[in-house]
Amino acid sequence: MINELVKKIKETNNPICVGLDPQLTFIPDHVKEKAYKEHGETLAGAAEAIWQFNKAIIDATYDLIPAVKPQIAMYEQYGIEGLIAYKRTLDYCKEKGLVIIGDIKRGDIGSTSSSYAYGHLGKVQVGSKSYYPFAEDFATVNPYLGSDGVKPFIDVCKEENKGIFVLVKTSNPSSGEFQDQLVDGKPLYELVGEKVAEWGDLHMGDDYSYVGAVVGATYPEIGKELRKIMPKTYILVPGYGAQGGTGKDLVHFFNEDGLGAIVNSSRGIIAAYKNQQYEKLGPLNFQDAARAAVIDMKEDINSALI
Amino acid sequence: MINELVKKIKETNNPICVGLDPQLTFIPDHVKEKAYKEHGETLAGAAEAIWQFNKAIIDATYDLIPAVKPQIAMYEQYGIEGLIAYKRTLDYCKEKGLVIIGDIKRGDIGSTSSSYAYGHLGKVQVGSKSYYPFAEDFATVNPYLGSDGVKPFIDVCKEENKGIFVLVKTSNPSSGEFQDQLVDGKPLYELVGEKVAEWGDLHMGDDYSYVGAVVGATYPEIGKELRKIMPKTYILVPGYGAQGGTGKDLVHFFNEDGLGAIVNSSRGIIAAYKNQQYEKLGPLNFQDAARAAVIDMKEDINSALI
Repeated sequence: MINELVKKIKETNNPICVGLDPQLTFIPDHVKEKAYKEHGETLAGAAEAIWQFNKAIIDATYDLIPAVKPQIAMYEQYGIEGLIAYKRTLDYCKEKGLVIIGDIKRGDIGSTSSSYAYGHLGKVQVGSKSYYPFAEDFATVNPYLGSDGVKPFIDVCKEENKGIFVLVKTSNPSSGEFQDQLVDGKPLYELVGEKVAEWGDLHMGDDYSYVGAVVGATYPEIGKELRKIMPKTYILVPGYGAQGGTGKDLVHFFNEDGLGAIVNSSRGIIAAYKNQQYEKLGPLNFQDAARAAVIDMKEDINSALI
Repeated sequence: MINELVKKIKETNNPICVGLDPQLTFIPDHVKEKAYKEHGETLAGAAEAIWQFNKAIIDATYDLIPAVKPQIAMYEQYGIEGLIAYKRTLDYCKEKGLVIIGDIKRGDIGSTSSSYAYGHLGKVQVGSKSYYPFAEDFATVNPYLGSDGVKPFIDVCKEENKGIFVLVKTSNPSSGEFQDQLVDGKPLYELVGEKVAEWGDLHMGDDYSYVGAVVGATYPEIGKELRKIMPKTYILVPGYGAQGGTGKDLVHFFNEDGLGAIVNSSRGIIAAYKNQQYEKLGPLNFQDAARAAVIDMKEDINSALI
């Protein structure tokens, strides 16, 4: 799947992914009103609004992008109905040929990590039958529990040719509270980065590993260091746009081959119609604003990479 | 809710919780066969087997215990159907008056952490209506992203009188890979423990904070240190039984008032019928084996605490 991701990035010449994080406040009123009219102001109504919003965004952008990154929390908060919308979104993205990075940030130990891995990336056995319950292509994983938490994911990745992105340095202001602490003179995120490189050797694709890393766009200097520590690791970069990262901050997350990183933007794309730059399109044309924002982001990053 | 947990621990004189982690391999054949007969060897069949198994365990133990800790991964792996069984289990536990610790180990940042918190501990707004999608009483939270990840949970806990348990030192063999690394001569788990105590001050119950910690039974000496660093913190202790912890290992996780810790056992209770000690009861009476295991665990811990 890492080979597939690289191939799609080359084909689209666009190293970005669209963060499908549909908060209800991002969804235009006309979409919500229609959903509530059909399902009431219920969890099913919220889920329908989310699904219709996502579908429109996907239809408007899928030909330009290699991948999407749905944030499961935005669906899970609406309970079972929300998770049905998550699954529906995954299935539709697959139909459109997009690589799916499930931003689930799971992490546990042993059989519990295995269960997450089977459920999200692999298949589960029920008697003599097997099923792929969620079937994302990649999942994000939290490393705090160490190898016992990460290796069960890698085992499933090997069986299924799927991948993971392990949190190394997150984009938020307080990420340094633990991640930046010095261990033998080296920040913890470096130690985690070294582990990611080591885990990566367990499951290599053609040029990059199936084990990737998450490093926030908001820390470009750290991105530069980690790029060196993890040369074969694909870096998923959140924090572009709304969180403050810009194209030129991102140069050092990439390798000299112009590959090695995929940059996510969520609200900067899906809620672009609320940005001054695109607001003339209006909430009725939110999907056109999303498409315009994808084109501008591609241009911003590619021009910085030259 | 921390006051309620303490009250229930005193009433039952039993500082344990039953880990509802229903792997299909733990579920006796007669339960699975009945479920598959009704729903086929499908995800719905697996979910039905899980629910019937849980219900029998709950019916057989609820009068003896203060709390349960369902591990969401064991349900989520069966997709939407599995999560319906999770929700059904939560609702039934609530009906039986049990405190519910959702072992979800979520952790993200800002609005994403808020979404998990609203979905699991609080309520979400849909138009003019609001809903409690999962409504656990406590949730476990991963601290790797720092305060930005944890504080949104605490905000919701304040609104709803709910609580969290933050991972500090996990029970698995490789937990030390990052958690034991020395920062200024102090292991990282101590730093996390200090933060937990600090976060705990933000939301205190009568004697203990709504912000608890997870510390594995498999590291008794570390439990002793952390007990001192976090005197007002309730400690959720996994790793008893199957993972190797015993009653006498647990003494120092408790305060002198005999409170301050709640010990989890999962397979040691729910799959007790497979242990030599209880196997004479047979798989048909798995729930009786679970009840016997609860009584023995209570005795083991309480006798160590005297």
